[in-house]
Amino acid sequence: MTNPTFDKGLEIRKSVLGAEFVEKSFAAADDFNRPMQELVTEYCWGAVWGRETLDKKTRSMLNLAMISALNRPHELKMHVKGALKNGVTKDEIREVFLQVAIYAGVPAGVDSFRIAREAFQEVGA
Amino acid sequence: MTNPTFDKGLEIRKSVLGAEFVEKSFAAADDFNRPMQELVTEYCWGAVWGRETLDKKTRSMLNLAMISALNRPHELKMHVKGALKNGVTKDEIREVFLQVAIYAGVPAGVDSFRIAREAFQEVGA
Amino acid sequence: MTNPTFDKGLEIRKSVLGAEFVEKSFAAADDFNRPMQELVTEYCWGAVWGRETLDKKTRSMLNLAMISALNRPHELKMHVKGALKNGVTKDEIREVFLQVAIYAGVPAGVDSFRIAREAFQEVGA
Amino acid sequence: MTNPTFDKGLEIRKSVLGAEFVEKSFAAADDFNRPMQELVTEYCWGAVWGRETLDKKTRSMLNLAMISALNRPHELKMHVKGALKNGVTKDEIREVFLQVAIYAGVPAGVDSFRIAREAFQEVGA
Amino acid sequence: MTNPTFDKGLEIRKSVLGAEFVEKSFAAADDFNRPMQELVTEYCWGAVWGRETLDKKTRSMLNLAMISALNRPHELKMHVKGALKNGVTKDEIREVFLQVAIYAGVPAGVDSFRIAREAFQEVGA
Amino acid sequence: MTNPTFDKGLEIRKSVLGAEFVEKSFAAADDFNRPMQELVTEYCWGAVWGRETLDKKTRSMLNLAMISALNRPHELKMHVKGALKNGVTKDEIREVFLQVAIYAGVPAGVDSFRIAREAFQEVGA
Repeated sequence: MTNPTFDKGLEIRKSVLGAEFVEKSFAAADDFNRPMQELVTEYCWGAVWGRETLDKKTRSMLNLAMISALNRPHELKMHVKGALKNGVTKDEIREVFLQVAIYAGVPAGVDSFRIAREAFQEVGA
Repeated sequence: MTNPTFDKGLEIRKSVLGAEFVEKSFAAADDFNRPMQELVTEYCWGAVWGRETLDKKTRSMLNLAMISALNRPHELKMHVKGALKNGVTKDEIREVFLQVAIYAGVPAGVDSFRIAREAFQEVGA
Repeated sequence: MTNPTFDKGLEIRKSVLGAEFVEKSFAAADDFNRPMQELVTEYCWGAVWGRETLDKKTRSMLNLAMISALNRPHELKMHVKGALKNGVTKDEIREVFLQVAIYAGVPAGVDSFRIAREAFQEVGA
Repeated sequence: MTNPTFDKGLEIRKSVLGAEFVEKSFAAADDFNRPMQELVTEYCWGAVWGRETLDKKTRSMLNLAMISALNRPHELKMHVKGALKNGVTKDEIREVFLQVAIYAGVPAGVDSFRIAREAFQEVGA
Repeated sequence: MTNPTFDKGLEIRKSVLGAEFVEKSFAAADDFNRPMQELVTEYCWGAVWGRETLDKKTRSMLNLAMISALNRPHELKMHVKGALKNGVTKDEIREVFLQVAIYAGVPAGVDSFRIAREAFQEVGA
Repeated sequence: MTNPTFDKGLEIRKSVLGAEFVEKSFAAADDFNRPMQELVTEYCWGAVWGRETLDKKTRSMLNLAMISALNRPHELKMHVKGALKNGVTKDEIREVFLQVAIYAGVPAGVDSFRIAREAFQEVGA
């Protein structure tokens, strides 16, 4: 698959989530979920994250807000770690989640704070 | 109510949504919804938008992403207009909603693009 | 269909939403949506609203909170009118929606207040 | 953009939603929403609808169920019309929405029946 | 309770989820949750799954799509296992979840793939 | 912070969730999540729970319904325990969750019953 969007996506995904994590995901993929790995890499990380106009730090903050509202703890924890890699500070993450508490409701805010603290512990932030 | 958080909230709310709009909202309020007007002004615009660390432009983008995901078209249209006031460009709004399409799903993205175009027309952007 | 749960549901549905409204719904039903009318009457109004332990006033308040959070404006307006019939006062409706604003987020609260005011106007409350 | 996934997507999108509708969407696109039109065509209609294993009729039914649950009335109406084009009968649409009522809640079911009836009227089904 | 809808529901529920699982659920029920067991068996499995027009395989796929979108991992895992019993292949499950990724968002898709793999392992599929 | 709304919120929060739990939450707070603890205490527990018109028992039932619909298991379990403290009986909790099953869907109901049983076990109810 010599697909430039896929290639760009793979590079960005590795830079945000860590090369090791991404390589392990592909290595662990089987016929069942490989098409999902490819779709995510190409469209999510290539076709959208690969666009200009917004920098990665801003995209990370948007994801924290959205994934909190969408209530997806596994993905949220991964994107908290990615946000730190993209230069979002802990203080800025706190501000995003306070805003989540107001707009998506206090339970969404409380859950997101708890998940962020777990993420910080796991990466020693 | 000489409440500094409320006062700060009122000022920020006016600067983002327009003084006329906010004054009309309070003038139209009755015993039923005045407590809601006050809560929103203090809690939302004072206690959170009034915080530092994130600038208004970033907070506007976070709101566009979240309110799209939360599926609230009335509020989204108002915040598209507020985002323009806070310096978010049309190109940046487009990027936010492309990212919404990936993370919150294509129907959320399509709806948000349609609402944004209505908002642009209403304010001549 | 001599089904006691259906019969009880029909009676309760009429008492909450108005006999005229319910009869019109059944009269307007065709082969496409009659099974839905029947399911809702039996399952929703008979098997759950027909239970004891919680009175209708409490069930109405629970519905206002849930249907706000679920973001279903048509159903919410209908249940605001039903709540008034079940003895929920305007002041109590306001309290439910302030609590919605905190737990389901400010946009959910703002939408619900607007819908409630429309409902009040339509029934002259 | 000589992109085979895009081309396949464009063809499928036209076959499901109508060539006229799709051409009008592209003709009406401006710099703001053209990237969204392209993303949807390639990603949604090419990379997923273009896959085999599930036929279009099944994909249409899945979309009716999901878009009901996701609460997106504009998109739902469009996909009801698309479902009829893909050979889903009115009886089958009714069954999908009865199942929605149980799993996504009665308000989601009621809303979907109402939208479906509007769609049927608009296409004379 | 000689209720034909309940009886039909009990039979279908056992055939999809396994007789042992269902019997254990009823045996473990107490005064608190027995009414829920009965409601689910009668309305969900009897009044809806017991209808004709759509076969069980199609209903299983609809449930996978909806329960993914609704974000209920416990129920999703159970219905992945039920889908295998109803003749949905692993390839078809993959297709459903790719479509979920597009319409309900990538985090919903990623979560559903992970849950499906856990379900496959637990039943040795 | 001599803020009467905060002080009232702190008192109510302790009475519903237990003084020990609340004190531990504040003691465990760091610069990251202390502002969230303060926001929740002041606005959620002071500015809304501190209002009159609805008693605590009713507010607890509203929260059970909403937090079930919003799909936040951690918060739901905590509010099941709080509901027992506020005088909501197990039978009434059952009724709330049966109503959730109808309006927010059967998976929401099933999840809530499971979480409630865990909460009952943890507090020996």
